[in-house]
Amino acid sequence: MLHGHSILNGCSTPGNGPVFSAFNPAVGAPLEPLFHSASVADVDRAAQLAEQAFVVYSRVSGRDKADFLRRIAENIEISAPELIDRAHRESGLTEKRLQVETVRTANQLRMFAQLVEEGSWVNACIDLAQPDRTPLPRPDVRSVLRPLGPVAVFGASNLPLAFSVAGGDTASALAAGNPVIVKAHPAHPGTSELAGQIVARSASQCGLPAGVFALLFDAGTEIGAALVQQPLVKSVAFTGSLSAGKALMDLAATRPEPIPCYMEMSSTNPFIVLPEALDTRAAQIGKDLYASFTLNVGQFCTKPGLVFLPHDHSADVLIAVLAAQVEAADTSVMLTEGICRNYSSTLTARTGHNGVEVIARSNASNESGGASITPTLLQTDGTDLLNAPELAKEVFGPATLIVRYTDREELLALARALEGQLTATLHASEAELAAHADLVAILERKAGRLIVNGYPTGVEVCHAMVHGGPYPATSDSRTTSVGTLAIHRFARPVCYQNFPQSALPDELKNPNPLGIWRTVDGTLTRDPL
Amino acid sequence: MLHGHSILNGCSTPGNGPVFSAFNPAVGAPLEPLFHSASVADVDRAAQLAEQAFVVYSRVSGRDKADFLRRIAENIEISAPELIDRAHRESGLTEKRLQVETVRTANQLRMFAQLVEEGSWVNACIDLAQPDRTPLPRPDVRSVLRPLGPVAVFGASNLPLAFSVAGGDTASALAAGNPVIVKAHPAHPGTSELAGQIVARSASQCGLPAGVFALLFDAGTEIGAALVQQPLVKSVAFTGSLSAGKALMDLAATRPEPIPCYMEMSSTNPFIVLPEALDTRAAQIGKDLYASFTLNVGQFCTKPGLVFLPHDHSADVLIAVLAAQVEAADTSVMLTEGICRNYSSTLTARTGHNGVEVIARSNASNESGGASITPTLLQTDGTDLLNAPELAKEVFGPATLIVRYTDREELLALARALEGQLTATLHASEAELAAHADLVAILERKAGRLIVNGYPTGVEVCHAMVHGGPYPATSDSRTTSVGTLAIHRFARPVCYQNFPQSALPDELKNPNPLGIWRTVDGTLTRDPL
Repeated sequence: MLHGHSILNGCSTPGNGPVFSAFNPAVGAPLEPLFHSASVADVDRAAQLAEQAFVVYSRVSGRDKADFLRRIAENIEISAPELIDRAHRESGLTEKRLQVETVRTANQLRMFAQLVEEGSWVNACIDLAQPDRTPLPRPDVRSVLRPLGPVAVFGASNLPLAFSVAGGDTASALAAGNPVIVKAHPAHPGTSELAGQIVARSASQCGLPAGVFALLFDAGTEIGAALVQQPLVKSVAFTGSLSAGKALMDLAATRPEPIPCYMEMSSTNPFIVLPEALDTRAAQIGKDLYASFTLNVGQFCTKPGLVFLPHDHSADVLIAVLAAQVEAADTSVMLTEGICRNYSSTLTARTGHNGVEVIARSNASNESGGASITPTLLQTDGTDLLNAPELAKEVFGPATLIVRYTDREELLALARALEGQLTATLHASEAELAAHADLVAILERKAGRLIVNGYPTGVEVCHAMVHGGPYPATSDSRTTSVGTLAIHRFARPVCYQNFPQSALPDELKNPNPLGIWRTVDGTLTRDPL
Repeated sequence: MLHGHSILNGCSTPGNGPVFSAFNPAVGAPLEPLFHSASVADVDRAAQLAEQAFVVYSRVSGRDKADFLRRIAENIEISAPELIDRAHRESGLTEKRLQVETVRTANQLRMFAQLVEEGSWVNACIDLAQPDRTPLPRPDVRSVLRPLGPVAVFGASNLPLAFSVAGGDTASALAAGNPVIVKAHPAHPGTSELAGQIVARSASQCGLPAGVFALLFDAGTEIGAALVQQPLVKSVAFTGSLSAGKALMDLAATRPEPIPCYMEMSSTNPFIVLPEALDTRAAQIGKDLYASFTLNVGQFCTKPGLVFLPHDHSADVLIAVLAAQVEAADTSVMLTEGICRNYSSTLTARTGHNGVEVIARSNASNESGGASITPTLLQTDGTDLLNAPELAKEVFGPATLIVRYTDREELLALARALEGQLTATLHASEAELAAHADLVAILERKAGRLIVNGYPTGVEVCHAMVHGGPYPATSDSRTTSVGTLAIHRFARPVCYQNFPQSALPDELKNPNPLGIWRTVDGTLTRDPL
């Protein structure tokens, strides 16, 4: 049941901003219903409701937050057919892909549920008083992580379920105890409204204040900008383009009260193959690398977009395998016509660059219209890339640039010249890895995640995952947007000095009523005091 | 042995910028020698040396970093008489106070030494591979905190030892594995040079690359600005004024690659007394509060600068006790003549404000010259403060503003109107605390540290300490500059996927050779795998 309306205070709320439609990118046709953009007054109302909800929600127990997150997961599973059908029509992504994404969305909600139910994530620290210490007694000092306040979340176009309305940012912000206001991505408003209804209904079913969640539509950028500048909003999470992300970063930094922002923006995900690995597995790497860079029509933030290969015969084998697959590729539908146009124009600019040659294009005729495109394989030399760093910028879509390096020294120089990345991949024998510790050390500083003999697409949702990296991959290299560590983006430590037991949060009370791990006088323990 | 020169590559290095002198604020006379400002080329050289040192220092074991930090502590203790003598002459702080600060400086270096020697601070996470998982196998994913890169540290004027060249920011940045470049505070350049020589000598004694530490002098702001903008610098820590801190924040945010910055800037440290506590302890609170707001001549960032009292007789008693001490106070010497002038002019502006009255001034004649001043006690009403929020801004020096509140509702409104703070203090009976959970909840969102029935000055250096808070107290409420948690400012998680054991950092190897706590498949353990 789509109304085309924002969700405020748990209710479908018509906005008085411009109307817009979702489009089916496969055929270029608009989809029902019309969506109504929210107004700046709606932003203020959502923020006030979120602030009121914070008073209650920030005190909700880990168990009750877990119930809420699990309820959202269950309701997503119940509505999965409807969500997947709408997302398929709005995004052009395959139903199979969206099925996987639905499972991931529910799983990550349950992962955060488990984390907050267990409760130790709050990093409780207790330093006991030492009244007899000289020259001065030591006070009783205790600290615990507390939620920041209302969080603004900007849904991503390429993961309309797992990184949108009920996705990873929303899940981690809610898990930390913060109300969430989502600015829906205009490319999948119907999917957003369905997911928004699910979150709002789950809050109601769990007896939580309706202000804990809001969904705002906007055809343009006004509502997003107003949201980031709203004084009651205390943090921002965003997944999208570098230009949009940087604009929001600047807004967050120039507020009267600057706030933490977590933008996941741009990554070309360097993929480096060393000679021994290449000699052993050239054809297999070519096969798997093709699957990785064209997965989801090349629209993953972890798509390997720069492939470093030496000038030798095995590299030619790998390239031939890649090229054959590119040439045989059928057309695919991108997320939106805008993204499709951008892919084409960026490719045109790249191929017009001195030193860049097109190795392979698809033979498929692209007459299907809409947002259909085919993959492309480009090549350049290490020296060309060093001289034209703009070639290393992200191309969003199924293209990758092979960079031929002459020797180890040039490879190190190329690695040093990289910007911040979400991932960096090395294909190497164990002996090569040992002999390239310097290369690994460079890549450690460039990327959030290093992969050996694997592929960067497919981001495991787990405790050790780091889906982050230095700018411009993200706005804050100290954080991740995937995995349990993501919850730490939305919390800050608060310290309680000389508080009586009755006034302390449960996490810090002597008997350890929650049974969590705590650092007591510097030692981790679950014991009561 | 002072040369008046910056320290680069472990050596005294004359700069070609403007010369300047330290001043003895007690008498207003310059001190020998002349100090030579560094040049922008020196900034670049320091950054390049730091970057080279990072390659080695970022791989140094926790034990070896601990040796380095302890060596600095020992060398500070050896040179304590010289340091204290110079700091006393440059800052006007008492030798007794500086003795305490020397102990604190050495202790916090040793605290970080112990932390990195134990090693669990790196938050090692391991999610083991599940090759048989369906539909897709799970890869082996492991993550650990790694240092950011060269850190720029700006020394504070008011803690010339504990938060300057070898102070908390430097100690935590070095502990995390980062080279440090200190911009010396021009108010205590001699103390800075002595401490810088100690750090440089300690690095040499420990066989570390000289680029791990540099000290740069500057009479103005050019060197600091260049340092924050230097591309190889990856993080900034600063303690000082809001205006200087915000200017550096803006520089850090507008770099081509924005970097994390940790500015500790401005706090008035609200001090709230509830009626029952007041009735029981009015005179004692008056006595202790006077000591707290005049400690270090009111030049602590945690000075209680806003004192909320009800309109009742016990409050009059408290005020009378405060007033008597203010009137009897002798003159004291501020850190610099500039700070002294600023204190006087800010006070003049405050006392000229409608609704602000001077309750007490010292009877001491202030003819000693230099940077001598006396304490001042001001009073206003809750409604006046709500109407003129500028009255709640920090006054750096021994003044405090009593705010009389009419009732609980007005007190809550006053609390809600507060800006971000380092601390908030409540004097209350246990019953009052329980009845004011709403007030505590408001203060939790305003301050990094809440204190019950105590005083905010005196910041314990321990695991649970949070010396931080929402803007404008600091630039990043998720962090602390005091206590072991401060190390997390200078590290970021890096993830290793499918790495062979031989290529993993020791922290992540199966046998757990360092014996640290690790999160393995979500469970904390020190067991080998």
